[in-house]
Amino acid sequence: MPITANDPNRTSWIQVAPDSDFPIQNIPFGVFLTRDDVITIGTRIGDTAIDLGALHQLGYFDGIPLTDDIFLQDSLNDFISDGKKTWRLVRNRIAELFDTENSRLRDNEKHRHVVLFTLDEIEMQLPVQIGDYTDFYSSKEHATNVGKMFRDPDHALLPNWLHLPVGYHGRSSSIVPSGIPVRRPLGQTLPPGADTPGFGPSERVDFELEMGFITTDANPLGEPIPVNEAEDYIFGMVLFNDWSARDIQKWEYVPLGPFLAKNFASSMSPWIVTMDALEPFRVASPEQDPQPLPYLRCEGHKSYDIHLEVSLTPENGQAQTISRSNFKYMYWTMAQQLAHHTINGCNVNSGDLMGSGTISGPTPDSYGSLLELSWGGKNPLKLNDGTERTFLRDGDTVTLTGYCRNENVRIGFGEVSNKLLPAIRK
Amino acid sequence: MPITANDPNRTSWIQVAPDSDFPIQNIPFGVFLTRDDVITIGTRIGDTAIDLGALHQLGYFDGIPLTDDIFLQDSLNDFISDGKKTWRLVRNRIAELFDTENSRLRDNEKHRHVVLFTLDEIEMQLPVQIGDYTDFYSSKEHATNVGKMFRDPDHALLPNWLHLPVGYHGRSSSIVPSGIPVRRPLGQTLPPGADTPGFGPSERVDFELEMGFITTDANPLGEPIPVNEAEDYIFGMVLFNDWSARDIQKWEYVPLGPFLAKNFASSMSPWIVTMDALEPFRVASPEQDPQPLPYLRCEGHKSYDIHLEVSLTPENGQAQTISRSNFKYMYWTMAQQLAHHTINGCNVNSGDLMGSGTISGPTPDSYGSLLELSWGGKNPLKLNDGTERTFLRDGDTVTLTGYCRNENVRIGFGEVSNKLLPAIRK
Repeated sequence: MPITANDPNRTSWIQVAPDSDFPIQNIPFGVFLTRDDVITIGTRIGDTAIDLGALHQLGYFDGIPLTDDIFLQDSLNDFISDGKKTWRLVRNRIAELFDTENSRLRDNEKHRHVVLFTLDEIEMQLPVQIGDYTDFYSSKEHATNVGKMFRDPDHALLPNWLHLPVGYHGRSSSIVPSGIPVRRPLGQTLPPGADTPGFGPSERVDFELEMGFITTDANPLGEPIPVNEAEDYIFGMVLFNDWSARDIQKWEYVPLGPFLAKNFASSMSPWIVTMDALEPFRVASPEQDPQPLPYLRCEGHKSYDIHLEVSLTPENGQAQTISRSNFKYMYWTMAQQLAHHTINGCNVNSGDLMGSGTISGPTPDSYGSLLELSWGGKNPLKLNDGTERTFLRDGDTVTLTGYCRNENVRIGFGEVSNKLLPAIRK
Repeated sequence: MPITANDPNRTSWIQVAPDSDFPIQNIPFGVFLTRDDVITIGTRIGDTAIDLGALHQLGYFDGIPLTDDIFLQDSLNDFISDGKKTWRLVRNRIAELFDTENSRLRDNEKHRHVVLFTLDEIEMQLPVQIGDYTDFYSSKEHATNVGKMFRDPDHALLPNWLHLPVGYHGRSSSIVPSGIPVRRPLGQTLPPGADTPGFGPSERVDFELEMGFITTDANPLGEPIPVNEAEDYIFGMVLFNDWSARDIQKWEYVPLGPFLAKNFASSMSPWIVTMDALEPFRVASPEQDPQPLPYLRCEGHKSYDIHLEVSLTPENGQAQTISRSNFKYMYWTMAQQLAHHTINGCNVNSGDLMGSGTISGPTPDSYGSLLELSWGGKNPLKLNDGTERTFLRDGDTVTLTGYCRNENVRIGFGEVSNKLLPAIRK
């Protein structure tokens, strides 16, 4: 079935600014609370939010096999379970409905009034109920930087890194959408030179520039997903900030991995951009040497050219870009991550979230964390307001943005932006 | 409010064998499918399952503030959210209803027919929808054994171990109830002496004797739970087998912890035994030296005297006990685990599962994994049928059982028993 929604020549009767992340070619999915306190699934064109629950009730999805309440839910999980064909039918239909030439809804003021919202009339929610959240560690540049800082500069990558996409399980409960403040965590840390740990607010709170992908029901327990089928089970992508407390992490993480250093909060952008919308931006991923084991070998371009930016806004200050990276730098692809995750039979469900791991590029201005940007705190980052950062200060807001662009269209992710609050007590 | 359900002198008009895990003093909670294909929340006395949904509809819980459908659900999550007072009221009421002297249900054959089931008429399900699953590593004997085998025998415990209950996040999706077979995982391993990994079925599949506790909604994101309040948020306990593939684990786990070595399956006993039922079996936990940081210090007896056994049944063979341990050996208590888990503000929800980590005792016959029982495969375990085990063979069934006993009563957990199937392909 063709992705007619991607037609680059289509314009919408809803006004869209030229630099918008959300032209009619995007059509992402999210969940929002409306001005009437109703929770619904929606999409967005330009700065207009569209209530898909209301559209469905008014008959605009007739002919597409959907249950009556599929969009009147507080998460996308059931819709995502309907599978790739349904996602595409719905997205194509939305594109048609909002096409400049289509008068059906355009000229029905009563329907428009029920279906359309300005952004200040809605409150974005987490788009999915995340059953399980897995975080990978798939940027070679990031893993190399961390290895150089904390282990052996001459053997920065651990022996397994080039053979498998290293991953670990994270905490679902503390994943919040953009806009929700994050509190500086308390915890145990080992002061330099000390034998016994101290306790207090983390002094090394950091962001991690990541992207995440959302899966549909992929496999029954016990059955791996072949790498060349894996993309069929990916619904879409979001921007993801894996907030981290480096000092807590350093003390706790041996031998079972990061725990309290990560699970105080992660944050995600609220609009899931579909893989269909990203299709025009496929690119090759970095060449893999050594060649991976057969279950991880796949064909074709499996990465995406997504420009990423991190900006930091001090309290009462101006936003300032502190990193520019790109998703295409990822060494391991999403297809490989999903094939690896399930090779042992681990089952993946609708609404599961898989994080990329920090996305660092090859140059120091493309590193995806303050840990790397300040090189472990040794080279403080100088901000325009004259202050310095090794790690985050209370009141700092971290904003991740991302978009794809070609000669025809720009498809963006909006933002994930969260402020760091002081620790709850000293 | 007194726990009248614990009255050791009470007997039931339902017959209970003297060595039953489920006397009228237990009253655990579970979820089952009935002979009529209805899913309901239930309890168990002796070998009789009791449909709490039906009991509630018939008015037997009148006077207790419960929503109409609280027991007609496929998980205990909402009931657990109702909180400790409600759990106690319901358990006390069940004890009254089934007391030998109480004729109300005893003499109502029509009601009894609707409410009571034999065990072969029901199919036990997972009792909770597990939002997040965390596994700890809180047995000093286990951590010491692992440290001796894989690291430095003279410094077996890592520096952080005595200061905090080490924990990590696990996978919720692949947790199955007792009875569901577990498939031997495929994966990458590094053969001895090799530089590059091989691929195939794990050759070191192991069980881990654990217990798990189930929480209620404990705290909003950002707010720690004080250690001396933590027990209020624990609903009950289950037996838990954290299936592990030691060869996959060895290759993958640095630096972010175990992943595919664990997430192919974990299994749990289907009846949650409440903390109220376990109250008579409180004991002191091992003395802690060094004294932990203030946020982990707590008063009173916070452990429980729970006898644990592991039996192994080869295909077409006889069950044989291969380990006897006890929950009381755990160095870190559940209250400390929960206080630590939330000290950074991480939020805990109803239905979350926290595993203890492998529970090994001080003597070699009390070790909680084949890794330890066979000392890394060096000392094969000799079985009665003449075969040996370093790790599990296809067709082996592992059964964990557990119970508390004093002069008056035995409170047990039933079992978690799962068979290991061969890998899906070679």
